[in-house]
Amino acid sequence: MDYSIAINTVWVLVATALVFFMQAGFAMVETGFTRSKNAGNIIMKNLMDFSIGSFVFWLIGFGIMFGRGTGGFMGEINLLSSGSFEHLGLDIPKEAFLIFQTVFCATAATIVSGAMAERTKFISYFIYSIVIGAVIYPIAGHWIWGGGWLEELGFHDFAGSTVVHSLGGWAALMGAMIIGPRIGKYTKDGKSKAIKGHSLTLGALGVFILWFGWFGFNGGSTLSGVDYNDIAHIFITTNLSAAVGAIAAMIVSWRRYKKPDVSITLNGALAGLVAITAGTDIVSPVGAVVIGAIGGVVVVFAIEFIDNVLKIDDPVGAVSVHGVCGAVGTIAVGIFATDGGLLYGGGVELLGVQILGVIAVALWTMGTTFILFKAIELTVGLRVTKEEEIEGLDKCEHGTESYADFQPRPVYLATEKN
Amino acid sequence: MDYSIAINTVWVLVATALVFFMQAGFAMVETGFTRSKNAGNIIMKNLMDFSIGSFVFWLIGFGIMFGRGTGGFMGEINLLSSGSFEHLGLDIPKEAFLIFQTVFCATAATIVSGAMAERTKFISYFIYSIVIGAVIYPIAGHWIWGGGWLEELGFHDFAGSTVVHSLGGWAALMGAMIIGPRIGKYTKDGKSKAIKGHSLTLGALGVFILWFGWFGFNGGSTLSGVDYNDIAHIFITTNLSAAVGAIAAMIVSWRRYKKPDVSITLNGALAGLVAITAGTDIVSPVGAVVIGAIGGVVVVFAIEFIDNVLKIDDPVGAVSVHGVCGAVGTIAVGIFATDGGLLYGGGVELLGVQILGVIAVALWTMGTTFILFKAIELTVGLRVTKEEEIEGLDKCEHGTESYADFQPRPVYLATEKN
Amino acid sequence: MDYSIAINTVWVLVATALVFFMQAGFAMVETGFTRSKNAGNIIMKNLMDFSIGSFVFWLIGFGIMFGRGTGGFMGEINLLSSGSFEHLGLDIPKEAFLIFQTVFCATAATIVSGAMAERTKFISYFIYSIVIGAVIYPIAGHWIWGGGWLEELGFHDFAGSTVVHSLGGWAALMGAMIIGPRIGKYTKDGKSKAIKGHSLTLGALGVFILWFGWFGFNGGSTLSGVDYNDIAHIFITTNLSAAVGAIAAMIVSWRRYKKPDVSITLNGALAGLVAITAGTDIVSPVGAVVIGAIGGVVVVFAIEFIDNVLKIDDPVGAVSVHGVCGAVGTIAVGIFATDGGLLYGGGVELLGVQILGVIAVALWTMGTTFILFKAIELTVGLRVTKEEEIEGLDKCEHGTESYADFQPRPVYLATEKN
Repeated sequence: MDYSIAINTVWVLVATALVFFMQAGFAMVETGFTRSKNAGNIIMKNLMDFSIGSFVFWLIGFGIMFGRGTGGFMGEINLLSSGSFEHLGLDIPKEAFLIFQTVFCATAATIVSGAMAERTKFISYFIYSIVIGAVIYPIAGHWIWGGGWLEELGFHDFAGSTVVHSLGGWAALMGAMIIGPRIGKYTKDGKSKAIKGHSLTLGALGVFILWFGWFGFNGGSTLSGVDYNDIAHIFITTNLSAAVGAIAAMIVSWRRYKKPDVSITLNGALAGLVAITAGTDIVSPVGAVVIGAIGGVVVVFAIEFIDNVLKIDDPVGAVSVHGVCGAVGTIAVGIFATDGGLLYGGGVELLGVQILGVIAVALWTMGTTFILFKAIELTVGLRVTKEEEIEGLDKCEHGTESYADFQPRPVYLATEKN
Repeated sequence: MDYSIAINTVWVLVATALVFFMQAGFAMVETGFTRSKNAGNIIMKNLMDFSIGSFVFWLIGFGIMFGRGTGGFMGEINLLSSGSFEHLGLDIPKEAFLIFQTVFCATAATIVSGAMAERTKFISYFIYSIVIGAVIYPIAGHWIWGGGWLEELGFHDFAGSTVVHSLGGWAALMGAMIIGPRIGKYTKDGKSKAIKGHSLTLGALGVFILWFGWFGFNGGSTLSGVDYNDIAHIFITTNLSAAVGAIAAMIVSWRRYKKPDVSITLNGALAGLVAITAGTDIVSPVGAVVIGAIGGVVVVFAIEFIDNVLKIDDPVGAVSVHGVCGAVGTIAVGIFATDGGLLYGGGVELLGVQILGVIAVALWTMGTTFILFKAIELTVGLRVTKEEEIEGLDKCEHGTESYADFQPRPVYLATEKN
Repeated sequence: MDYSIAINTVWVLVATALVFFMQAGFAMVETGFTRSKNAGNIIMKNLMDFSIGSFVFWLIGFGIMFGRGTGGFMGEINLLSSGSFEHLGLDIPKEAFLIFQTVFCATAATIVSGAMAERTKFISYFIYSIVIGAVIYPIAGHWIWGGGWLEELGFHDFAGSTVVHSLGGWAALMGAMIIGPRIGKYTKDGKSKAIKGHSLTLGALGVFILWFGWFGFNGGSTLSGVDYNDIAHIFITTNLSAAVGAIAAMIVSWRRYKKPDVSITLNGALAGLVAITAGTDIVSPVGAVVIGAIGGVVVVFAIEFIDNVLKIDDPVGAVSVHGVCGAVGTIAVGIFATDGGLLYGGGVELLGVQILGVIAVALWTMGTTFILFKAIELTVGLRVTKEEEIEGLDKCEHGTESYADFQPRPVYLATEKN
């Protein structure tokens, strides 16, 4: 009996379940932070990007990401994930690795639904989910985790600040940019107006679920339970960064808006989590505190910048949390890594590679998703009609009401007509 | 130190916690898909069937299910689960096995509350919970998992498509049939009317929680963490079937009702999960995809059939999801099992046994629960009064309001008077 | 490869994640059982006591609690948890122990927010969180788990009925007493009036989450996965006590108030969980049933006593659940411990030590938190203004609304003016 493989597999599968559960977290964050008339639609998108993502990643994505590479760009295609994948030299069964990677792929895919919430056609989101899970994510994944060119260069993205979160964030940016803002989001003179969500409680529950799942996300990325010092260290740095991210965002919101803002603080925790993900294994606890603080501060300004300057309507702040903080956290590895980081005498080499990788993934993602969303726009169409948007996507897209038994606030329809 | 037992126990106990958490999933699905005036009542029923189920299964059920058998019908009674149970030849402590089986028993019990929601007296549901946990479930369980006659015949129900889900589903069918439809569910000329639930969001959260817990439900049923290839395989087939179940149900709903329906899609994921549970260990990933697709399609037609043809009012679709898809998934093992299935050259022997087992458990459950619910009806009564039903069970049964701080939609009372 | 350490670490880290998730449970219970106008505020308090608690416990608390002791009162300070802590003789990495203890500290801290809900200033709660996590909890923790004087005497508090729950409960008692009742809670002639919460559903979800997390809370406290008999036993006693606690509380409420009360039953489950926590490893299943029943009965009378006799307004019953049942459960160890308990021929020695420990922690906590809350009251102030309380803390403290899209019930403001 090889106990190591057994312990590793148990650990990775528990982590898989936790990462799966993050889908519930995303669903709650995204519905909670948006309006009740669109809640069912957002849930359908979350459910479907996971479902279709699971299917296509198994069908084709896994092979592209982890198949034996040729030239560092993508792996060879193994339909149905059917190859032996012995070249990976895994200490867990291939199927354990496959399911763990599947839930990661789905995480990258699901980030977009929040940024495009409340106005995207269901069919077009469905098509997007297929392409990102089958092609866009696996190719970037191959570069970084599948033996591709960035991995060759020494790029360090331990659990996916870049390949999962910033990739999802940049796709979200393109989607939100191309589809345009929700009706009523910007006044005629371009001033941004807050459109409040329908349940801060569910949003908060979602953040707690995500934090919970993140222990699996980062801890499971060792692919090993026998590396017990590593996984314990990862739990410490992950938790500290999240905690400090929340505190930092709260303080910034308190100073800027005179009151400690709830949704910003919740996003601060997520920012800390996203930022630490790249370096959770090789930064010290003090490093994690600093990275969390950076994430918590950056996310507030990023949200403002995207909202007020770029005038891109991202209802849940997905671009700032996942895109910007994913990038910042990845670059921070070049500074804070105890082995190779700038502050620890490692020079600028690692830092340079980290920046390069962040830029490469950003360009890849923005380029491919720009084409993707434009192609969808020109064919099946990306956006619901104005009437449908005002009525709510639950009714027009799914023929339902999410809260048939509660009285929605009528004042909202009026607001939207401004 | 026997590391195998340690690894197995850790795995089974983690799985136990996950399966326990499915209770929260059931509670959210059932409250979310029903009206706000009955939310507290449904929660009480969920909480109590788990609590009373845990107690009576430990008190008597475990002995009946896993005690040394005499004749294949039931085990010998060991009050307080106090025997040694050495004949089981477990590779985990008896208490780990007991708690894992306890949460399974409670899962079977809790399925009924959804089908009988919004009109069942609390006291009568409480009595039902005692009987199913102490007698009905353990006896069927003995047949299949406790060394009884079906296990002898080679019946394969790995994690309980039949013994947990279809048993719960058939009990739900009897309960819903005997108690009759909710007021306002069918018009005078027998046409079915949809009674919408009060929170699709909570319902969806429940489905995500159930899917999460299912990794423990199926994965833990190996009772082993050292069989690492098996548990990894189970994660793959479980997830694929759920994902494809959701996709299939969505497509069917889209074609039949012109729009992708949210609650049907959610039920499709559950259908895929229920269907794969019997054969999750011995079907291939492709088999899992097919089984999930079958489950997702079948559940839509089963819901329609039960609602429109049988005219049985099952507010959450529990009979279709657990009963029908549990049966279908169990029979599918006879077709898709890579060792012994019809499509893999195994002939019809296994298929025959699977069909026999499904029928036997259906007859056993329908027969005993018919008697049980009829006996309750004739003694303490099964149903609340018409006035209580219209006012809501939260108020009349528990003297509370679940949402004292929100304004319920007054239009609903009017609807019910039709 | 030391497989024991690997198995232990995997187990403790899974348990850590589960205990972390209890924060979501507390957040849901506390928001669900209070009014919608304060939901965001309660969430902020939960999020912040965990975040700030995580930070200060790592910064200073862990050293005070587990540093090498001098005289049994407190450990030596190790800033940043940086010492080797070899004197602890752990079978897991120090960082695994640190993160597990961190989530325990945060659990103690978060109990208070429920008792002081709906009227406490955010800044003052923030200050409280720092002090309890950095000083008050670690010192009591040192006494019991860090090699201090109570541990020397043989005090048995396996997973923290006293050091986590009753400590949190007594701090909650002091806080609720000093800040005074909510407006409208007591009539002019001193009669208590129920102020109903805004979502029983979320409250129930919270209880299910807490129960789920408790398997990690109690099971993980072995700090060992290789002690497989112990962890299996703990799962059995934990679950039985919770189940019987719920049943007992339900029965008592049914007899006293004529109807089975939902929130009391939910609190009964928590009472059973809190009560079993001290002796979960060394009482029998029958002992667990009795302890759960005691907890479930005691909690109902404790809630009445605190509300009607002491006239202390504890919106969620935190003092009764955590303080009273924590104390009762700890004392019960002296009676029901199979090794040393009164009923098992162990005499009164253990019982005496258990009582002593309960009293000592109660005095320590009440004394220090009395000073703490009084000091906060005299400096930054403890309570919001009357106008702010009536308007709701979400608006005045955070400038937000938690349910911007739902219509709150206007009748409530009127009620409060009585």
